[in-house]
Amino acid sequence: MFKKILIANRGEIARRVIRTCKKLGVQSVAVYSEADAGSLFVREADEAYCIGKPPVNQSYLNADAIIQAAKESGAEAVHPGYGLLSENAAFAKKCIEAGLVFIGPPPEIVAAMGSKIEARRTMKAAGVPIIEGVDAPLADEEAAVQAAQGIGYPVMLKASAGGGGIGMEFVRSEAELRKAFAGNKKRAEMFFGDGTMFIEKYIEEPHHIEVQILADQYENIVPLWERECSIQRRHQKVVEEAPSPFISEATRQKMLEAAVQAAKHIGYTNVGTIEFIVDRDQNFYFLEMNTRLQVEHPVTEEITGLDIVEEQLKIASGARLGITREMLKRNGHAIEVRIYAEDPESFFPSPGKITALRLPEGDEIRNECAVEAGSEVPPFYDPMIAKLIAWGRTRKEACERIRSALENYQIEGIKTNIPMLIETVSHEQFLKGYTTTHFVDDFLN
Amino acid sequence: MFKKILIANRGEIARRVIRTCKKLGVQSVAVYSEADAGSLFVREADEAYCIGKPPVNQSYLNADAIIQAAKESGAEAVHPGYGLLSENAAFAKKCIEAGLVFIGPPPEIVAAMGSKIEARRTMKAAGVPIIEGVDAPLADEEAAVQAAQGIGYPVMLKASAGGGGIGMEFVRSEAELRKAFAGNKKRAEMFFGDGTMFIEKYIEEPHHIEVQILADQYENIVPLWERECSIQRRHQKVVEEAPSPFISEATRQKMLEAAVQAAKHIGYTNVGTIEFIVDRDQNFYFLEMNTRLQVEHPVTEEITGLDIVEEQLKIASGARLGITREMLKRNGHAIEVRIYAEDPESFFPSPGKITALRLPEGDEIRNECAVEAGSEVPPFYDPMIAKLIAWGRTRKEACERIRSALENYQIEGIKTNIPMLIETVSHEQFLKGYTTTHFVDDFLN
Repeated sequence: MFKKILIANRGEIARRVIRTCKKLGVQSVAVYSEADAGSLFVREADEAYCIGKPPVNQSYLNADAIIQAAKESGAEAVHPGYGLLSENAAFAKKCIEAGLVFIGPPPEIVAAMGSKIEARRTMKAAGVPIIEGVDAPLADEEAAVQAAQGIGYPVMLKASAGGGGIGMEFVRSEAELRKAFAGNKKRAEMFFGDGTMFIEKYIEEPHHIEVQILADQYENIVPLWERECSIQRRHQKVVEEAPSPFISEATRQKMLEAAVQAAKHIGYTNVGTIEFIVDRDQNFYFLEMNTRLQVEHPVTEEITGLDIVEEQLKIASGARLGITREMLKRNGHAIEVRIYAEDPESFFPSPGKITALRLPEGDEIRNECAVEAGSEVPPFYDPMIAKLIAWGRTRKEACERIRSALENYQIEGIKTNIPMLIETVSHEQFLKGYTTTHFVDDFLN
Repeated sequence: MFKKILIANRGEIARRVIRTCKKLGVQSVAVYSEADAGSLFVREADEAYCIGKPPVNQSYLNADAIIQAAKESGAEAVHPGYGLLSENAAFAKKCIEAGLVFIGPPPEIVAAMGSKIEARRTMKAAGVPIIEGVDAPLADEEAAVQAAQGIGYPVMLKASAGGGGIGMEFVRSEAELRKAFAGNKKRAEMFFGDGTMFIEKYIEEPHHIEVQILADQYENIVPLWERECSIQRRHQKVVEEAPSPFISEATRQKMLEAAVQAAKHIGYTNVGTIEFIVDRDQNFYFLEMNTRLQVEHPVTEEITGLDIVEEQLKIASGARLGITREMLKRNGHAIEVRIYAEDPESFFPSPGKITALRLPEGDEIRNECAVEAGSEVPPFYDPMIAKLIAWGRTRKEACERIRSALENYQIEGIKTNIPMLIETVSHEQFLKGYTTTHFVDDFLN
């Protein structure tokens, strides 16, 4: 096991990684921007280096500054967290060239899965079901129109380098496609430096369900069941749970097999997530692969008892997986909600000073929180300030616990989405397990 | 299920019961003394009634005031928590006579188990092993000396109505027994209104291990494994864990059988705990039965996934147990530490204002805390202000998690025993599972 690692991230996920470091007796090194100097994760790490100013491109995306901090501190490895540089193949490569272990898969895999078109092709070759669509970049608007005609409307227009819904659009007709093409291409160029576009058939009443896997460097792959992440707002997940209340046991087993097959085909190592779209008839299709820890990993930890960050560190340090598929037992049900510093009416971010904070406590309630009373929520970063996770022996119990904990959440000074989360987890349709990606639009306000 | 219940207790256990009420949609009624008017449990309950001033005999021990609050509020049942009136048969009887459900066993069982001499006799009749000793009250000092001669020194001199170490003494010789007898009898009279004394053989290197049971009103009894509670200071438990690292699987099974046999023999209902002394050769002996929820119930919840307070409410409302012994699986390891507002040097209580508080968060960490930043810890009550519980897949992982969480516990304004708890859970002997009741004296200074 490593003696010291650097965490190239901030907020709740930096605290999460530090916690496992402390548990294992591994020294942790934080890097932070000037805006985060007073943050909990900076205080909790054993060492901390200021690497620049906000916004992110002057600090958290500055690969050289991060690698320099790692070298200075004597860290042996870099944990990238999620977001920021976590799926940046060039950063992973730079770490390795600097003699550091990148806690994730090899840079080539990060790069291959970062291109959605390439990922589609790879998964097709691996025998994993993919959505009907085009496997080559669309040269221009005309090529897009032709491709869409072949597939049949409605279709999804997507950026190959995309993520978080940027450069993506639902189009019902040729007119809509023509209207959308240039703008989305431009946004993709602007955000990702890559305007490559492709088209996939639109799946009706889609469920977003993903499979968590662990893979060591000795070709052992263990799937940790699935997470249902269908409840989204503007393509951002809001509520996640495990297991999925939607899929049958037969579908589940097929999806786990497909995920293992996908990981095996590409020689995947470390933890990763294969995201699928599942239609109302339980057909599933590869959507994308995330080559990093996910925001929603806690729900998988809650139903398996595993510490996924510990598994990441062990795998990266060269250890064999200590668990097999047979040894694992799925236990109960877990739900996570993401708490955003935002105005619940307008959905605009609500940065500012948190004047009072009391987290819900108690049995089977888990907090992953970036802030404390007195914290300033800076305006420069993702507005997610905390996650709340509840476990139950049954889905019903998990729903009751998380609703009750949300009602008990006391945060003052900023606005949050807690009212909308309470509405969601108390909603009759949610309690029934009806959680397609249209949930928010269809059932809230 | 009840629509509304009253909680005849305070602090963390009142919050604990309120939490399950909220989860189940049951209305909760708190009662409080003037000293607790600003407490979290008072705010969190749906209704709250002030029942008098501190100390406890003017409020929390005032059965009539509590029952009046229950009647006024329209509560259907009374949850007594632990301590205070929880094992007071007269209170249980008064509740029933007032038309309220007492959430616990029938008053006759509370009374029978409250007399340690009677409990000894009952358990002997049930075929449960008891410690060699006397089964009738000692008339006087001479009778005590005679009894001790028959048993052989060292012996334990005990008050039949005792608890918490009061009226109890370890005696090595006739001289020590003669010296101790009158004083202990007097203390027992003073504290419990009953000076009845008896004697038991002293067990060397004793482990204190107890079995949690659930029993419904239809003769279904389910044991929820054991808790190891050997680490004590002045006969008060400080660290508890489940399962016990000491006993063999064969001993465990025998103890669970004995606990079921004990509960069946007395027609027990609701949740209860059979406490045993286990000697170094794994012989076990009945010590006492607690006819209520225990402080340390969370460790059992953590390894079973059950909500024991929910089970209490269900059983009391007349439901059949929804679980059988076969359905339950023991999962991992859990450790609880009790956090006291006390000076770690002198062990004197340290009441006062909590100026800052940040509880440890994260995976498999559970807080049961009575206070928040700004709370006043009044000097009138038990100084336990919080419990911290950690779960792990293995005992090692649970030890690492609780150590790390304790190091992260931030509480200012009062003194606590956290330094001593960190010392305990980091101690080589503790990590080896060496947890006899002499641990604190032998290994901590």
